[in-house]
Amino acid sequence: MGMRDTLPQLYECKLKTKSVMETTVSQWGYRFMQTPTVEYYDTVGEASATLDQQLFKLLDQDGKTLVLRPDMTAPIARVAASSLKNGALPMRLAYGANVFRAQQQEGGRPAEFEQFGIELIGDGTTSADAEVIALMIETLQSVGLHQFQVAVGHLGYVDALFKEILGTNERTETLKRFLYEKNYVGYRQHVKQLPLSSIDQKRLLDFLLLRGSETGLQQAEELISSTRAYEALEELKALSEALEVYGVNDLVSLDLTLVSHMTYYTGVVFEGYSPNLGSPISNGGRYDDLLKKFEMDAKATGFGIHLDYLMEALQPQQETSPTQCIVYSEKQRKHAVENAQQLREKGERVVLQDIKGIDYLDGYTEQFAKVTYFLGKEEGRDE
Amino acid sequence: MGMRDTLPQLYECKLKTKSVMETTVSQWGYRFMQTPTVEYYDTVGEASATLDQQLFKLLDQDGKTLVLRPDMTAPIARVAASSLKNGALPMRLAYGANVFRAQQQEGGRPAEFEQFGIELIGDGTTSADAEVIALMIETLQSVGLHQFQVAVGHLGYVDALFKEILGTNERTETLKRFLYEKNYVGYRQHVKQLPLSSIDQKRLLDFLLLRGSETGLQQAEELISSTRAYEALEELKALSEALEVYGVNDLVSLDLTLVSHMTYYTGVVFEGYSPNLGSPISNGGRYDDLLKKFEMDAKATGFGIHLDYLMEALQPQQETSPTQCIVYSEKQRKHAVENAQQLREKGERVVLQDIKGIDYLDGYTEQFAKVTYFLGKEEGRDE
Repeated sequence: MGMRDTLPQLYECKLKTKSVMETTVSQWGYRFMQTPTVEYYDTVGEASATLDQQLFKLLDQDGKTLVLRPDMTAPIARVAASSLKNGALPMRLAYGANVFRAQQQEGGRPAEFEQFGIELIGDGTTSADAEVIALMIETLQSVGLHQFQVAVGHLGYVDALFKEILGTNERTETLKRFLYEKNYVGYRQHVKQLPLSSIDQKRLLDFLLLRGSETGLQQAEELISSTRAYEALEELKALSEALEVYGVNDLVSLDLTLVSHMTYYTGVVFEGYSPNLGSPISNGGRYDDLLKKFEMDAKATGFGIHLDYLMEALQPQQETSPTQCIVYSEKQRKHAVENAQQLREKGERVVLQDIKGIDYLDGYTEQFAKVTYFLGKEEGRDE
Repeated sequence: MGMRDTLPQLYECKLKTKSVMETTVSQWGYRFMQTPTVEYYDTVGEASATLDQQLFKLLDQDGKTLVLRPDMTAPIARVAASSLKNGALPMRLAYGANVFRAQQQEGGRPAEFEQFGIELIGDGTTSADAEVIALMIETLQSVGLHQFQVAVGHLGYVDALFKEILGTNERTETLKRFLYEKNYVGYRQHVKQLPLSSIDQKRLLDFLLLRGSETGLQQAEELISSTRAYEALEELKALSEALEVYGVNDLVSLDLTLVSHMTYYTGVVFEGYSPNLGSPISNGGRYDDLLKKFEMDAKATGFGIHLDYLMEALQPQQETSPTQCIVYSEKQRKHAVENAQQLREKGERVVLQDIKGIDYLDGYTEQFAKVTYFLGKEEGRDE
């Protein structure tokens, strides 16, 4: 990860994978767009809700702070609210792009990740939440990933529960941080130190059990009393029904402790996991307030797939289409070029190589599936 | 140009164009790879031979200077000489990537350009020069660009001629700068002020006439006396014969005044022009010394296509594959989803939209080629 090169074998698999995913999301009516790598800090940088120390900042010559974009959701929101603001809503947009995070441990060099994702802007319905999760699943399946699970939570529930018990935003954020880091030991220790009634402490500890169990939603109801938290649970029920229709419910499990490091999420959130990988391969959720930062009042949801993790989970065979080579000498150039042109027209992959340009013939020709020589006065012959 | 967004209509044309070009260069045996957006200044930044004020520099937390890559040739050379150094030569590599130049006139913000190109590393033959030019032409033709011309020059000739007459590197660089800027008036004025014999002044002025004329090579011979300059002309003759074999000679014309702002070029250089555009759509050439900066002794050549200019020259129709929309109410979700799935399996592009998520139905449905409603108790009906 980070500042690594991607060499041909892996990169060609990546290109193929991206192309299949592009087809899938296009067929669902999403349209691809592109934004600049560098954005202004005080608009997109701030809206991206990335921890400030993870932003890679730079200055332009006027002293304005720029950032290498840390995510694509905020830039797409910016465009939806400006250049595309006259388009009819809901709007379905897609992207494949690199994003950057400053890495403390790597001397502050930016780590670069390739993301592939979609945004569904201007639709606050549970149908939109369901579509985004179903499309994420279909996209992952379309490239051959079958072993994975999607965990679904709801920030409305977490926030309401924590607010009921903790009152202040600051305490809520501290506790959410433990959840984001999946540091449940730290969470428990922290809760036990809080000046709370034993009932409230138990509620916060029981909350941790709301992960994927059959009776999750019912148990969740018992922990809360606010309307917002009930609404969140109702939304999750409706979501589950909608996902049933898409036939993907068996891949989805409830995890109400799911929170994100991106602070713009407001409702349903989700993460996709592959059994072999520690980090989620994809994630997303509802961000109903983000567009307001760009002066547009539109609810929205979306997902992003972490392409490098996906390639790791796919463990592609790295087989490339076989390449043949035509080695020729100057006198035979005409025949060699004609031959190569004919083969390429048939869709074959052909390297055409002047023998004078090869230092070590045996080593060079080893890499090809087939080598044909057009040399001196001879006719072409196969080897 | 610069920090612009690319909206769906144009971007989808761009994706299609890139995909066709990828197929073309793959069929010639070039393999795609990817390098990081950010590189170290003192290796790749310096090697890229971009004017220092055009580099967009940033600092990491250790105080090391980084750059947003200004071109792809230097990063690919870096990889060829490191991760790929055990690969057999010649090596054929390709890329599609964004490059960055600091723009003085835009407050120092980086302008971002998308480049598509190839590098043929480890082959010093004229056949390699011919292959790269022929492939550039085939790549441009494969995406539907037919009206264009390729100008070919040779830095060995320019450098030798200027050295014969001017002696110092500094004077040579000043004069080359006029050529790079295509400021021929400035060139003439400058030459007339130089303390030279009238014969030498005439040689420098006659040199300007060596652009595309039939008798170019012969006139060029008359201006010079050094071996290096003669060798350059011999190479151009051989190149012309090789291009004849590829059947592309009618698109190529000689321009010995062609120089590049990239100072790493050493031999044959070329630029592709479209009649509608002021700036070259593509360019490239031989850089036999660049790999040495990465401790590899290998001659090389390559081309890059400026994708934004290409899209401008192509003036794509911006027609997108027609999208249909299924609008449904909750009760009809199951039918709607099934219907959409069937259509998508046939390769159709289908937006599935819960009617509750639409604010203004008439405006929303206008954008689709066909709208089908699955509402309430009704059966689906077309409109």
